[in-house]
Amino acid sequence: MKITSVNNDLVKETAKLLQRKYRDESGQFLLEGDKCIEEAIESGLELVRTFKLEGYEKFPEGIETTEAVLAKISSTSTPPKTVAVARKPDRKWNSDYKKVVLLENIKDAGNLGTILRTSAAFGVDALILYGDTVDLYNPKCVRSSVGNLWKIPVFEINDFSELESKFSGYERVATLPKTDNTIWLRDFKPQNRILVMFGAESTGLSDALKNFATQNVTIEMDTKVESLNLSISAGVILYEIFKS
Amino acid sequence: MKITSVNNDLVKETAKLLQRKYRDESGQFLLEGDKCIEEAIESGLELVRTFKLEGYEKFPEGIETTEAVLAKISSTSTPPKTVAVARKPDRKWNSDYKKVVLLENIKDAGNLGTILRTSAAFGVDALILYGDTVDLYNPKCVRSSVGNLWKIPVFEINDFSELESKFSGYERVATLPKTDNTIWLRDFKPQNRILVMFGAESTGLSDALKNFATQNVTIEMDTKVESLNLSISAGVILYEIFKS
Repeated sequence: MKITSVNNDLVKETAKLLQRKYRDESGQFLLEGDKCIEEAIESGLELVRTFKLEGYEKFPEGIETTEAVLAKISSTSTPPKTVAVARKPDRKWNSDYKKVVLLENIKDAGNLGTILRTSAAFGVDALILYGDTVDLYNPKCVRSSVGNLWKIPVFEINDFSELESKFSGYERVATLPKTDNTIWLRDFKPQNRILVMFGAESTGLSDALKNFATQNVTIEMDTKVESLNLSISAGVILYEIFKS
Repeated sequence: MKITSVNNDLVKETAKLLQRKYRDESGQFLLEGDKCIEEAIESGLELVRTFKLEGYEKFPEGIETTEAVLAKISSTSTPPKTVAVARKPDRKWNSDYKKVVLLENIKDAGNLGTILRTSAAFGVDALILYGDTVDLYNPKCVRSSVGNLWKIPVFEINDFSELESKFSGYERVATLPKTDNTIWLRDFKPQNRILVMFGAESTGLSDALKNFATQNVTIEMDTKVESLNLSISAGVILYEIFKS
């Protein structure tokens, strides 16, 4: 099969997936570039269709197309040679999860992708997106997770009461600046089931989640620096709690 | 003073600083936005000139100008209300430095800025840029360091023999994937003077620097994940070595 017109219906339908609204409606999203597509296939993700540059040897079943079409259905300034449409995986909550990370109101897709990758590396069982967050299936997030989007189940929770019932039996850790109610990260000894919560880049954790925490930790750092980048904080904390 | 034409000589000279070549030649670079400019002033950096949007209350001595001029002399898609030109600080090497970080061939300005910020937070004394690296004074790097560019001295070294003579008395740590010659990060007990070396995102450390290392460490992580983002690796290692 071959499609050369940027006005083809399948191209237009695919390009719509650059917008969250259409990803939410269709349950589909974009994979840009070989590596990303191959990782998705390997993880058993269901592909709806694949576009590839005319004559490109990979993905023999793919729809051959032009650079202009690839540019229209991808998000990077230099379009990749391949773009695929995949179906979002359907995940079931497992009450055996012991290591869970929660991100509240996270807005930066690059940070989300990096935290996903770090969480997978440090053996986190599941990730919770809470509140008003960037779409996990945002192309930038898919890219910065470098194929790790499929290696860890992600759940969206918007309702505080759902959070309360799911995590009532967990030790719930908040990362905060040093006060009387915080302990140093190095002194924290995790118990059996842990929920580690991170707030947004600019505003930090909401009061609701601060109150929900059973333990507040602070990363040791020099006072001359105000804060760490969110994904660095997450990396250091997840390493220290789950790996060191 | 007021400048409204994008063709004004001072505007053209300032816009040239968006290119590394002119930053290298002039020893000057751009600061974009209030926060960045204020941090630079606070750290004693010498400002050459400041542009600000007409009528903007901050920086009373600044040259009043238009949005079009600010767009021309800044690097972000939405121009800031203020842009300043600063002189690069002149740093002298101090042989008392105990905690030094080296970045080899680092190409991503965002990673460099984030590692600078993390290094400052974890008490690193100095940073070495070795080989073919992105310009420290790249506007993206200035932004992602969030004002920490001035809090830690940075030195460019291109010559291996200079590296050898400066760091002959240091414990030299390389971060590598797990092999027989590496120890786990958690088992590493740092000695008195340490140089921690990181390679580029895609290629890792060069053989020259691998051979130069006196100790190889590996971050504990799940085998299902290939690697961590460079600035996350750096965050975890610098925390573990210098802070935990």
